[in-house]
Amino acid sequence: MSQLIQSTPRADGFRMPAEWEPHAGCWMLWPQRRDTWRYGAVPAQFAFVKAARAISRFERVTMGVNGDQFQNARAQLPPEARVVELSSNDAWARDCGATFVVNDRGDVRGIDWNFNAWGGLQKRMYYPWDKDDLVPAKMLEIEALDRYKAPLIMEGGSIHVDGQGTLLTTEQCLLHPNRNPNLSRAEIEQHLSDYLSVNHIIWLPRGVYEDETDGHVDNLCCFTRPGVVALTWTDDRSDPQYERSAEAHEMLMSARDAAGRSLEVHKIHQPDPMTMTKEEADGIDVVDSAFLRPEGERLAGSYINFYIANGGIILPQFGDRLDLDARRKLAELFPGREIVGISAREILLGGGNIHCITQQQPAGR
Amino acid sequence: MSQLIQSTPRADGFRMPAEWEPHAGCWMLWPQRRDTWRYGAVPAQFAFVKAARAISRFERVTMGVNGDQFQNARAQLPPEARVVELSSNDAWARDCGATFVVNDRGDVRGIDWNFNAWGGLQKRMYYPWDKDDLVPAKMLEIEALDRYKAPLIMEGGSIHVDGQGTLLTTEQCLLHPNRNPNLSRAEIEQHLSDYLSVNHIIWLPRGVYEDETDGHVDNLCCFTRPGVVALTWTDDRSDPQYERSAEAHEMLMSARDAAGRSLEVHKIHQPDPMTMTKEEADGIDVVDSAFLRPEGERLAGSYINFYIANGGIILPQFGDRLDLDARRKLAELFPGREIVGISAREILLGGGNIHCITQQQPAGR
Repeated sequence: MSQLIQSTPRADGFRMPAEWEPHAGCWMLWPQRRDTWRYGAVPAQFAFVKAARAISRFERVTMGVNGDQFQNARAQLPPEARVVELSSNDAWARDCGATFVVNDRGDVRGIDWNFNAWGGLQKRMYYPWDKDDLVPAKMLEIEALDRYKAPLIMEGGSIHVDGQGTLLTTEQCLLHPNRNPNLSRAEIEQHLSDYLSVNHIIWLPRGVYEDETDGHVDNLCCFTRPGVVALTWTDDRSDPQYERSAEAHEMLMSARDAAGRSLEVHKIHQPDPMTMTKEEADGIDVVDSAFLRPEGERLAGSYINFYIANGGIILPQFGDRLDLDARRKLAELFPGREIVGISAREILLGGGNIHCITQQQPAGR
Repeated sequence: MSQLIQSTPRADGFRMPAEWEPHAGCWMLWPQRRDTWRYGAVPAQFAFVKAARAISRFERVTMGVNGDQFQNARAQLPPEARVVELSSNDAWARDCGATFVVNDRGDVRGIDWNFNAWGGLQKRMYYPWDKDDLVPAKMLEIEALDRYKAPLIMEGGSIHVDGQGTLLTTEQCLLHPNRNPNLSRAEIEQHLSDYLSVNHIIWLPRGVYEDETDGHVDNLCCFTRPGVVALTWTDDRSDPQYERSAEAHEMLMSARDAAGRSLEVHKIHQPDPMTMTKEEADGIDVVDSAFLRPEGERLAGSYINFYIANGGIILPQFGDRLDLDARRKLAELFPGREIVGISAREILLGGGNIHCITQQQPAGR
């Protein structure tokens, strides 16, 4: 029912819509692995439930869950969420899930990128990632939507689009030799153009300091509407994040989008630097095949890693003095959307945040 | 999204439609277990694919599959079938799947019966059956349909309805002490009435000889339209099936349906008796926790175990001299439906047939 299509979205008149365009719903994956999430993933499950509950106020959430956690997830999640058996190796729907595209008639299709768990065996985030790699096909089968298989190793968190032909990404991630070592920058651009129908790519140099994704743009910078971006920022010149945000800011100020517009750039000051505590690190299983998460490790906290729902913004909060500042700025940038803050440190401990654990499915006809 | 409803279908105005009423589609489960299906279940998978392909000509098939067989099932099944991860202990969608009910407004809901693998630990068909028992909830989550949990251990194959208030079943199965030993006949009737909105139950004594389900009615007798039933038959008085069919025939000839009609009874002569060959039995894994399937065992072959699709009848064929006779009779009983014969010995080796591996989902609004 989900046919594999041999052409490209561009050739068929499909484009990736911006995240603020109307959604049919939101996909998430249930956290479970004990070497990513402390204390048997129970605190992470509570955090995912809070996020799902918040998103459910605005649109339907579908939670994919491994078979052995179906009943537990169903019991914890709000009744308006849909819970489906859909196994994965971890819980990052943004990165291993399908990216959806639409055409002018309201048809929806999905892109199934190649996935190598953020850098394959060179990176060793975890091994294997065979279930993650099947997540897009399984999502599209459930929805009976047709599928494109893209010849590019990529995660959804490494791109943002304005829905009008412009794509934001980072060189650190998309040109990293642990992703597509045999593709040139021009070839990667061609694939992004063919599969997302973008005409102009803004390459920022690096992502957030110590971001274990090799600098996904979705933790650094995003569009808030065409011609407007938000950028994580710090005023502390001694923080290693400073030069990363500063160089991105400089590039954005001189950039143009696909329509030829210069960009309005809004700085969102990051939370104060956070590190993994001993109590947090001690609760994580240590296994050879997974990334080590030791005490004292800097956490890549950023307010940019929010999710845009129909009528709402689901925003990470860290119990930080800057939480309120971020809420206020986002409220200005998204007039008409309710800002819902979620305590998100637990998600951050696993290496990502609210945008990383969600994937919007655009509304069709 | 699939809400658990605390009332009953009857109280809410829902009834189980007859199988010939329009379907949204058909659910199946992918065969895999090596102690049910010979040679690693590969020949059974071929047979299920043939059935799915035949049904797909008339309506959408959704195949539920364990995660480790997702790619194999997807590769084998026709593209118009939907393949979803939905784990089960074996492959009997009729028996462990949801039973659907509808109301006059076209709303569709599902009944989640209790399931104990055809008799629990007294019977030991296989153990455990925990995944089977979750199949209805998972089906209904995918479809976002609300769910009733019925306080009755029952399989879908043990009932047939005419959609107008009459239910057919067998005493051998529904009154068997390995199902609901603490419920009286009257209490079981009350549950069937409450959950399926039937007003009149026709109890046949026994099912087909050596049927390992304890005599499911769907291998013995079914409605073909209101007031008309088809019954498996043999003219051979020395066959143990003779007295079973004869006693059922006698009861049916004197029965009335919920509308007060007497029944028109059509005999469909069974195929010649078949037994498991040595080559077949040798290919089945032997494990302590599963039913033994030895050489020489009588197979409960019957032409009654067909599936009614939108516009078609998917009919078991056994390479028997009586195959054509069954095809002709069914063609007369279902004018306007195409009769599609499927070689079904491989499914029969596992203990059931085409009706046992399918479950119709009625069309909604």
